[in-house]
Amino acid sequence: MSRLPAFDYSYRIQRAKNLMEERGVGALMLSVGADLPYFTGYEAMPLERLTMLVVPLDGVPVLVVPRLEAPRVDDRGSFEIRAWDETDDPAALSADLAGGGGRIALGDTTWSTFLLQLQALLPDAAFEDASTLTSELRMRKEPDEIRYLREAAEATDRVVERLESTPFSGRSEADLAAEVRMMTVEEGHDVATFDIVGSGPNAASPHHEPTDRIMENGDTVVVDFGGRHWGYCSDTTRTFSIGTPRPEVAAAYEVLQASQAAGRAAVAPGVTAASIDLAAREVIDAAGYGEFFFHRTGHGIGLEAHEHPYLVEGNELLLEAGMAFSIEPGIYRSGEWGMRLEDIVVCGETAVDELNRSERHLRVVD
Amino acid sequence: MSRLPAFDYSYRIQRAKNLMEERGVGALMLSVGADLPYFTGYEAMPLERLTMLVVPLDGVPVLVVPRLEAPRVDDRGSFEIRAWDETDDPAALSADLAGGGGRIALGDTTWSTFLLQLQALLPDAAFEDASTLTSELRMRKEPDEIRYLREAAEATDRVVERLESTPFSGRSEADLAAEVRMMTVEEGHDVATFDIVGSGPNAASPHHEPTDRIMENGDTVVVDFGGRHWGYCSDTTRTFSIGTPRPEVAAAYEVLQASQAAGRAAVAPGVTAASIDLAAREVIDAAGYGEFFFHRTGHGIGLEAHEHPYLVEGNELLLEAGMAFSIEPGIYRSGEWGMRLEDIVVCGETAVDELNRSERHLRVVD
Repeated sequence: MSRLPAFDYSYRIQRAKNLMEERGVGALMLSVGADLPYFTGYEAMPLERLTMLVVPLDGVPVLVVPRLEAPRVDDRGSFEIRAWDETDDPAALSADLAGGGGRIALGDTTWSTFLLQLQALLPDAAFEDASTLTSELRMRKEPDEIRYLREAAEATDRVVERLESTPFSGRSEADLAAEVRMMTVEEGHDVATFDIVGSGPNAASPHHEPTDRIMENGDTVVVDFGGRHWGYCSDTTRTFSIGTPRPEVAAAYEVLQASQAAGRAAVAPGVTAASIDLAAREVIDAAGYGEFFFHRTGHGIGLEAHEHPYLVEGNELLLEAGMAFSIEPGIYRSGEWGMRLEDIVVCGETAVDELNRSERHLRVVD
Repeated sequence: MSRLPAFDYSYRIQRAKNLMEERGVGALMLSVGADLPYFTGYEAMPLERLTMLVVPLDGVPVLVVPRLEAPRVDDRGSFEIRAWDETDDPAALSADLAGGGGRIALGDTTWSTFLLQLQALLPDAAFEDASTLTSELRMRKEPDEIRYLREAAEATDRVVERLESTPFSGRSEADLAAEVRMMTVEEGHDVATFDIVGSGPNAASPHHEPTDRIMENGDTVVVDFGGRHWGYCSDTTRTFSIGTPRPEVAAAYEVLQASQAAGRAAVAPGVTAASIDLAAREVIDAAGYGEFFFHRTGHGIGLEAHEHPYLVEGNELLLEAGMAFSIEPGIYRSGEWGMRLEDIVVCGETAVDELNRSERHLRVVD
């Protein structure tokens, strides 16, 4: 994450403290992952030297940070900095700041080695996932967060348009992926973060990593990619057909497109996250492709590419205005072909607000 | 990690089991991070869906993996695959495979949310860091691992040579960093993984993230970069002077170069990791710059850019032939200038084996 906006971080920390008080949590501890930048504008390096923000219910938050990384921290005034030296024990420093016992909410992606150290240092503390608290704030996007997500989505839409006139046939998946990555930056991201290019039978592997396979006429090609723009993520998928699609592919794509439209149409405040999954899935099930759609319909998006809320069977969370997530049904025929259609949307005050707006037809390319 | 070599993974797992038996560990559980690819050739996606290899002391290892990622797994025959569906509980699946109680070694970088789930599912188990076991194997490189590390180091040496004729003055740090990243791939890496370009006062921030600062005559510029080659990391640092260095910079650099040479010369089987740190540090201390060298002298390297052994005060580990690590003293004058000199070396049978061999003088550029 190369740069983050000047949000009101003190306000966010105060909101976290309010939730901590309501729920009886004594301290919040955040290390690697997206919670820390959400509350401070600073991202911890994912290395073996511990960085930990300790937010006590009462008192000033303190960022425990390796001395050689302290100059990286842009002090925005919402926390104090405690730099530690190579022979110090940063877990002990953090434990002291968190206090002796009670409930401690720890960032979900903190390395387990540090949790084990903290548990040994604070035997009377009960650790729990910070996300049950932080996702309450992060799920409900501020208007400026939606603006960054929208700008990132618009940049990916421009990449999709460029891909329609890009040659596919005769190139490797890895070669096309490198071009997608370059275009992702050119069209308005600080960095490209991932690119799935799955062609022919590889399109049936939803999280396929691009290979040296040479794409050829008759392939369907799933291109799923995104980047970061002021810290906020994009994530969109379009499926391409090299040459005229076979009838079975064209027929399945009609179903896929109807499924995704049903998912988008179902978005409204007050409905459950699971109901969006169900709306999209019913279309695919009814057409007889149910067994070939074996993942959830979507995931929240923000500072992380995947975050709450998850659109999955069993998630009874009620959607609210300001929640941002993907809608991405897929149909995968193992060993033959695959397809997915993914857009980022926001739940608006009354209906869906579509951030990605590039056309959703099966794109025929050369 | 885009590709990994066809190592003998079954042999590595058998060695891990031998260590488990010796130490009374009942199960090894590996998720995100470098331990999993070391033992399987497969790297878990760092996302919210759990991937976990469970290695019981007796019995076949099982890889618990999300169904949509199962097609990614190249089954090399050393483990079984258990794909889980979106409404399954992968932590419960993993816990069942690990058995009821006893000592469980868990990969150090596993997300804490999964450790908390496992602790709740297995209240009689005692979790500990897998690294105390896995680093015993990973620290001692196999000849083929050293070959990949050497090839990666040679690629960075070629980048350094190209930088000497690259213009610095008038360009931003971020712009030069992008070029370094491109050259890192061109010279023989699958991917560039990091690039620090710190100029002028920014050179005094050891983990500086490149900014829009325009570099100018009189700056020292620290360029620290690396990538992955068949999964193995490179990591080297050279310091450049734009134009003739000021006398105080040139004098400090002489000390830095002598310090790093002392560190390299101290490498031999049977000496402690701390003794390498001390050998380099004594030179800087003796010249009066001690307070400006505030980080350890080096870190191990392999599938991770930073891994065991760490060359730091207090680490009494005895070096052995086959251990690979950086030697990288630095001198940092806050607000003014900074410099670092870093090479990767291997402890040979009798003395140091230098993987990076590009010249170590202060490089004057335009």
